[in-house]
Amino acid sequence: MNFITKAPVMLRGGDYNPDQWLDRPDILEADIRMMKKAGMNSVTLGVFAWAAYEPREGEYNFTWLREIMDRLYDQGIYTELATPTGAKPNWLARKYPEVLRVQSNGVRDHQGMRHNHCLTSPIYRQKVEELLNHLIDAVGDHPGLILWHISNELGGECYCPLCQERFRSWLKEKYHTIDALNHAWWTSFWSHHYDSFDEVEPPFDNGEQSLNGLKLDWRRFTTWNMMDYVHSETAILRKRTPNVPITTNLMEYFPGLDYHKLQRELDFVCWDSYPHWGRPDRSTTVTAGMTAFDHALIRGCKPDKPFLLMESTPSLVNWHEYNKLKRPGVNRMSAIQTVACGADGVQYFQWRKGRGGSEQFHGAVVDHDGRDDTRVFNEVTATNEALAALTPVCGSLPKADAAMIFDWDNRWALDDAWGMQIKQKNLRETCCQLYAQLNHCGVETDVVGVDADLNRYKLVVLPMLFMTKPGFAQKIREYVENGGIVVATYLLGYVDESTLCWLGGFPGDGLREVFGVTASELDTLYPGEGNRAIWVKSSQQSSIKDYCELLQPAEGTEVVAVYGQDFYSGHAAVTHHVFGKGHAYYIGARLDDAGNAAVLRAALADAKVHLRDLPQGVEYHCRESENARYHFYINTTQSAVKVQVESGADLLSGKNVLGSMELKPYDACAIEEKVK
Amino acid sequence: MNFITKAPVMLRGGDYNPDQWLDRPDILEADIRMMKKAGMNSVTLGVFAWAAYEPREGEYNFTWLREIMDRLYDQGIYTELATPTGAKPNWLARKYPEVLRVQSNGVRDHQGMRHNHCLTSPIYRQKVEELLNHLIDAVGDHPGLILWHISNELGGECYCPLCQERFRSWLKEKYHTIDALNHAWWTSFWSHHYDSFDEVEPPFDNGEQSLNGLKLDWRRFTTWNMMDYVHSETAILRKRTPNVPITTNLMEYFPGLDYHKLQRELDFVCWDSYPHWGRPDRSTTVTAGMTAFDHALIRGCKPDKPFLLMESTPSLVNWHEYNKLKRPGVNRMSAIQTVACGADGVQYFQWRKGRGGSEQFHGAVVDHDGRDDTRVFNEVTATNEALAALTPVCGSLPKADAAMIFDWDNRWALDDAWGMQIKQKNLRETCCQLYAQLNHCGVETDVVGVDADLNRYKLVVLPMLFMTKPGFAQKIREYVENGGIVVATYLLGYVDESTLCWLGGFPGDGLREVFGVTASELDTLYPGEGNRAIWVKSSQQSSIKDYCELLQPAEGTEVVAVYGQDFYSGHAAVTHHVFGKGHAYYIGARLDDAGNAAVLRAALADAKVHLRDLPQGVEYHCRESENARYHFYINTTQSAVKVQVESGADLLSGKNVLGSMELKPYDACAIEEKVK
Amino acid sequence: MNFITKAPVMLRGGDYNPDQWLDRPDILEADIRMMKKAGMNSVTLGVFAWAAYEPREGEYNFTWLREIMDRLYDQGIYTELATPTGAKPNWLARKYPEVLRVQSNGVRDHQGMRHNHCLTSPIYRQKVEELLNHLIDAVGDHPGLILWHISNELGGECYCPLCQERFRSWLKEKYHTIDALNHAWWTSFWSHHYDSFDEVEPPFDNGEQSLNGLKLDWRRFTTWNMMDYVHSETAILRKRTPNVPITTNLMEYFPGLDYHKLQRELDFVCWDSYPHWGRPDRSTTVTAGMTAFDHALIRGCKPDKPFLLMESTPSLVNWHEYNKLKRPGVNRMSAIQTVACGADGVQYFQWRKGRGGSEQFHGAVVDHDGRDDTRVFNEVTATNEALAALTPVCGSLPKADAAMIFDWDNRWALDDAWGMQIKQKNLRETCCQLYAQLNHCGVETDVVGVDADLNRYKLVVLPMLFMTKPGFAQKIREYVENGGIVVATYLLGYVDESTLCWLGGFPGDGLREVFGVTASELDTLYPGEGNRAIWVKSSQQSSIKDYCELLQPAEGTEVVAVYGQDFYSGHAAVTHHVFGKGHAYYIGARLDDAGNAAVLRAALADAKVHLRDLPQGVEYHCRESENARYHFYINTTQSAVKVQVESGADLLSGKNVLGSMELKPYDACAIEEKVK
Repeated sequence: MNFITKAPVMLRGGDYNPDQWLDRPDILEADIRMMKKAGMNSVTLGVFAWAAYEPREGEYNFTWLREIMDRLYDQGIYTELATPTGAKPNWLARKYPEVLRVQSNGVRDHQGMRHNHCLTSPIYRQKVEELLNHLIDAVGDHPGLILWHISNELGGECYCPLCQERFRSWLKEKYHTIDALNHAWWTSFWSHHYDSFDEVEPPFDNGEQSLNGLKLDWRRFTTWNMMDYVHSETAILRKRTPNVPITTNLMEYFPGLDYHKLQRELDFVCWDSYPHWGRPDRSTTVTAGMTAFDHALIRGCKPDKPFLLMESTPSLVNWHEYNKLKRPGVNRMSAIQTVACGADGVQYFQWRKGRGGSEQFHGAVVDHDGRDDTRVFNEVTATNEALAALTPVCGSLPKADAAMIFDWDNRWALDDAWGMQIKQKNLRETCCQLYAQLNHCGVETDVVGVDADLNRYKLVVLPMLFMTKPGFAQKIREYVENGGIVVATYLLGYVDESTLCWLGGFPGDGLREVFGVTASELDTLYPGEGNRAIWVKSSQQSSIKDYCELLQPAEGTEVVAVYGQDFYSGHAAVTHHVFGKGHAYYIGARLDDAGNAAVLRAALADAKVHLRDLPQGVEYHCRESENARYHFYINTTQSAVKVQVESGADLLSGKNVLGSMELKPYDACAIEEKVK
Repeated sequence: MNFITKAPVMLRGGDYNPDQWLDRPDILEADIRMMKKAGMNSVTLGVFAWAAYEPREGEYNFTWLREIMDRLYDQGIYTELATPTGAKPNWLARKYPEVLRVQSNGVRDHQGMRHNHCLTSPIYRQKVEELLNHLIDAVGDHPGLILWHISNELGGECYCPLCQERFRSWLKEKYHTIDALNHAWWTSFWSHHYDSFDEVEPPFDNGEQSLNGLKLDWRRFTTWNMMDYVHSETAILRKRTPNVPITTNLMEYFPGLDYHKLQRELDFVCWDSYPHWGRPDRSTTVTAGMTAFDHALIRGCKPDKPFLLMESTPSLVNWHEYNKLKRPGVNRMSAIQTVACGADGVQYFQWRKGRGGSEQFHGAVVDHDGRDDTRVFNEVTATNEALAALTPVCGSLPKADAAMIFDWDNRWALDDAWGMQIKQKNLRETCCQLYAQLNHCGVETDVVGVDADLNRYKLVVLPMLFMTKPGFAQKIREYVENGGIVVATYLLGYVDESTLCWLGGFPGDGLREVFGVTASELDTLYPGEGNRAIWVKSSQQSSIKDYCELLQPAEGTEVVAVYGQDFYSGHAAVTHHVFGKGHAYYIGARLDDAGNAAVLRAALADAKVHLRDLPQGVEYHCRESENARYHFYINTTQSAVKVQVESGADLLSGKNVLGSMELKPYDACAIEEKVK
Repeated sequence: MNFITKAPVMLRGGDYNPDQWLDRPDILEADIRMMKKAGMNSVTLGVFAWAAYEPREGEYNFTWLREIMDRLYDQGIYTELATPTGAKPNWLARKYPEVLRVQSNGVRDHQGMRHNHCLTSPIYRQKVEELLNHLIDAVGDHPGLILWHISNELGGECYCPLCQERFRSWLKEKYHTIDALNHAWWTSFWSHHYDSFDEVEPPFDNGEQSLNGLKLDWRRFTTWNMMDYVHSETAILRKRTPNVPITTNLMEYFPGLDYHKLQRELDFVCWDSYPHWGRPDRSTTVTAGMTAFDHALIRGCKPDKPFLLMESTPSLVNWHEYNKLKRPGVNRMSAIQTVACGADGVQYFQWRKGRGGSEQFHGAVVDHDGRDDTRVFNEVTATNEALAALTPVCGSLPKADAAMIFDWDNRWALDDAWGMQIKQKNLRETCCQLYAQLNHCGVETDVVGVDADLNRYKLVVLPMLFMTKPGFAQKIREYVENGGIVVATYLLGYVDESTLCWLGGFPGDGLREVFGVTASELDTLYPGEGNRAIWVKSSQQSSIKDYCELLQPAEGTEVVAVYGQDFYSGHAAVTHHVFGKGHAYYIGARLDDAGNAAVLRAALADAKVHLRDLPQGVEYHCRESENARYHFYINTTQSAVKVQVESGADLLSGKNVLGSMELKPYDACAIEEKVK
């Protein structure tokens, strides 16, 4: 076993805000007692505590923090310590208005809310530096400190003059000449040629919205500037507490930052997972599948390290449109799934509900009633027992046969593209649907960026990879040439890294040769419209919606399925091309699940990936260490199911299992297979 | 008979804007002739007449007004005179920009529209004072003047620097110390601790939205500042015309002001009622029931005085999304209902349609055709005949056995709460649904604030009383202890007057003991989802939507109904608890009408309230004076119905009735029962 | 044959942006070769080329333009040259911020997008003047230059101080006295009397929105100011290149400008047509019918000249919510329809897709693949062959028996009216539905403004003519008196040219006598609600939705149809009145297609208009010159149909036809009937 922090445990904790209760020592005392009862071994302290640390400029107070950390540590509870920069205090905003963010409408925010500071402001950074140094002075040496947690759920943009100037400098460094920028942004369109970098402004709502290249570079700059800001924090922490690892909590499918870049500042990644478990239009199985994709997406930001689930709710959130309770057993099931997907800890937001503020009705382990015998408290306790039993998997990693490529630049380029379905291209849905089909076959899949080493995988899936960045097409070409299997969908290779369309036909940048197919037109259907794919060999039929590419197969390309109606009836909808030693599948239309499954199963057969015959609703994951494989079977349904499993010890039940077992509703097993 | 003004009549009039027709003496002459024909005895003059009174700063002209009042009075038509401060003239805005309002986005309005002045501006108040004094000089002594009408449909907020500063002063006065404010607003949340009152800003759209306490206090301050402004008008009026009563027109379920407070500046209340009579998704009966609730809500602001219906439309409005005609008979029926609910007058907006402006297509008694023989004119005439016949009820008051508690602070706290169904908690719907069930039993119900004397009532209903303010829980406790009957719904007693959650379990502040139940969790359902309540004794089933609280009944609490499905199937949904000499019912879920009726009928039985067996669609109300009771039976349907009534003279038909009568479609009777 | 330009051809071309490809001479060369192959004979150059012409202030470069024009002309391809003022260069915005537009929220735009300059700015106009003079110096004498194209898709408003001041001057010139303005705007409403013109502001979003007269005059001013701006361009062009005609591209049912006025600056009109061909809720026949209305609306702006289709797409657009491909054959069919409706040319946006910018996925003749053998390229080639074959029709004009009145002021007054269905009055739908019924009878209909000479027509239709401007009612009266036939719908004659309601009853201004009917009330129905019209003579029934006017027929007026339900059941819904020698039909409710058809067929019979018995889905149009009539039959369906036609030469197939022929799916014929 290896551990992601110096604490030799599967982390089981949650956000803890004793600074809201400093006038209630009885509550602070009860907290620790109840944490022990619930099986917690970690807390996240100090998120949003700036005003508690520094109520007036330069007046610091960390006494209460040290005391709390002492008392927690005495009871075996570790501290993950946030830098309190998720929200700035009122005095800072009042004295130095430059720290207030300017929104995309050009208006500077008033003080309030959170995520509310300018990313560039030198004064802000200076004040943070002073604060962090005092914080480290106060508790940097505390034996209970196992992790730094930078700020909180980083995000947002700032359009202030300082950020604008920084954007221009960043562009200068990127493009060197204004001509290069003009070409990349295709500014000959609508006469938006820039004569110098000084003319460039960010894409204000009431400004330049017609240049996709500008919009994309602004997003890239925002990630860069956020990383630069984060670095201003991590540099201090790494220098003064070199042995304490650093992370920050990422968010589900967050649009604002390129996490593949942001992770570079972190020692391992963590995230906050709040699935819509109770939505009536999705089964728990489907929601679990989407969550598995999300885990893989975050895990893929730092694939050689287990991750941590920093936040989840034991019951409900307070910001969904309808805030439904997690059903009994779902919390434990989803926690086990989290570990199965590569986490070495599952934590909650939050330990105890605050009396006021906009999150007063967000679920917590301890409710306003202050009791330790509630349904929710008991669910958490049971979950922590399961997590404790899973401690042996710490340090092991999921071993994936397949990879799915996900790229933030591609996502942004798709989001901003004028065309197709304007409002929602549904990249996430396409990813999740393909992911779920791999999942149903028991195939572990990594979700990785375009820089990933593909040779680790037998199969690579490219969902809606609209943008092909330099070198990526060549990498795919070599991967297939050398025997790799790829499955790509519609919208592959339309634009380059600047969002300029590839000339000569789609998919561009050499991918037409690999896939043996050209997508000559894209037909976007209205909601309610559809088409059918008819499998040439099996006559299987799948329904199609949203997108139909008109494909021109090259000679030698196998037409796997054809359209069943409309003017392109009988023409290729899915193709298969042998290229070098490998195979390249191309899906030209948004197929239904059975259609996606048919293509993936063919590709998996080519890739010689072992499939599992899983009962409906049972999810499989596997983590591997040097000495063992951990096979997780998770029943995401409300019915008991019988499942074929490896023989070995089930960490969860503590029993030895011989090849099959019954899983109760929302129950799971984790079979340890020793590897010599 | 007593009258709310010195005019010894049931008021029958409307808004009248002769200032739009000063160049058309023929029309002014026709107006008075036609008013007489229609049976009008009052007009509201001078709403929005500032520019007509004072076209340039300091140049006044009231000659036309005095003339009009003279001619009206000559013909027996009384004048209700508005202060013309509902909209300021252009010259005022141009010369003194400080009078222009600043909206919640921080942007100062341009001149235009109405409700458009800063509530604080000293210059505005000074100009109003000058104007009012001149107005009183001109007509304050007029014998036809029976009522002052302050401004018009008061509302809106101002975020200008003057109002901000006033808000800070108001907070200082309220909290004394910044620590008290910090605690009340729970500013330890997200680091929003204030170090001094100077740091506080109003809740700008792009500012502090995370502190519920701030948002609530801003709403309270806005009511306070509006009252302070209104007082600056009423002080002048009361001093100079002490015998003329003062009112202002309130609005249906208006969110912007706490009418329970605002009424203190008024001698009696009035309001403007514009129900959606023709909506295809609601029967006329349902709309009438909602309107009865609205009448009761306004009446409850000043329960010891009859109210006045200041505005209604004889035909249609122009601001509903679909502006449908009132069907024949509905106008008369709704006017009678208004009186039955406690009004001593029913007036229209407006007498004659204006040729231009945004209200040119709003219904009026006289249309653009200028005729006095239209369908609408005839409906108004018939309605006025009915109103005249009801003159004997003037001064009598509805006598209610039941009370429903409604509190603006509670409403605001619910509206702003993050959680449950975020976008709409549907407090009004809950109130109306419960009100309608009481109505169907023939039980008159007052809708009153938390300061009301509950001992007047046999039954008290607490719909979604999320906030319990100081003393209220204790009052309920004593009320029940002494034999009172209460029915409360889900979301009772979650927060205190600062929106801080009660600790120790919901309902808080001691109400758990009264109701013998704890609401440990709240499950919010998605639209289309539901549950069932199964009555323990009768096996009656009701459908449930939106909200299901998980209830923990105390020992000795009767489980009246249980949930029929989901993981809390079989657990309590409705409870009944004997406390002291009284009974406390708790409804944990949003029941259908039959479910609400079942609970209320049980409670009414406990309360020994006399129920009436009313035919479907017949609404009953009763007004009492020293000498008589007036029993109103109103047929809200398009079919004739036979109804059991008291024996006595029917004021409307002029006939004596002996225990039963037939009511034609949309017809009503008003049986006078003499009390010696 | 006459031609709209000096080029003796049916124009077949498209927008061409070589300035995006100046670094790719290979592409520029291929372009001309492929244009020839596709059958193009014209291009539109220089739209948005300002920065290419003048990359820095005062530095001009037209060399590339002259070269391109030379090479095109060498190959027989004419140049339509845009003035490049559709988007300003960055340097202009940066140096002279006054050229940036201010939006209706009062905020000045940042540089970006297009349509982005202040309409008033003297500096902008000066810079345009300098640029145009240099442009004319460079290419004004070019033999290939056949047309000036002013800017591009003119539109938008500016609320800057310069425009405000200009608005006040314009008002002074219009009203002379502030009293006249006060009366026209009915400013006695809500106290908005103006004491001087200096007090007037435009209708800012957060300003004066309650005066319909102000809003309407602001729209009129914006048209006037845009025309004034356009004139500043055309004055230069007309002076320096007097033989080159001038146009600009109008847009489908554009709300922003009164095209009946704007056309005065143009020699002929053209427009950009982008129908939603593939919408699943509309058949191709319905979409074609709506497009025919659009053609007629634009054609009617300049009825004595053929028009030009400046832009269309050969495949799809990129800005519909769902961007669906035009089905095979639809492009050719719609191009032939365009000519049938009076166009002497059909052009595309655009020739070749640009690599970047927000229109990179808008359809073009040449795709990113650069091929000249694609499906789309072939469709364009086939279309151009058809257009070439139709060259003989050039200069001829549609000859309409019927006219439909459309007036921008009326449209704006309706759009802004508070009342009826607030959000959408559906004027366009009413027009299109009536137009389609005339179309189905084979009756060519002009859509013309209120200034049109009605005596040219046997039938005049007045859909929702809410506003009757001075003289129009009298014109209708005389028209009918002298034997004309009119059909009007609900909402006729409610307001005058200032949006003041007509007094004395609707329809006002003397129209009650003509139609023999008064509309005493308007009942607006909710969606899903309806009524029925029952024909008195035939008992035919039609469904009704949205609007029901309560009609009072005068003595002698025939009740054609009555309402079938609700309180006005049995009362008139459709009337017919003989007035003088003519007939006046009034439709009081929104009838279904069959109902509209019944009224129109009766009116057409009175008007003795020849009807055609067309198969379902076949559209008929006729153009006439001195020597010939051209009868177009267009099959808008996907099935072959047999159709009775005139005998003569079919220009499209080149065959002689004898009285009937079969039209393949989406095919058409154009029979030339010689007139001696």
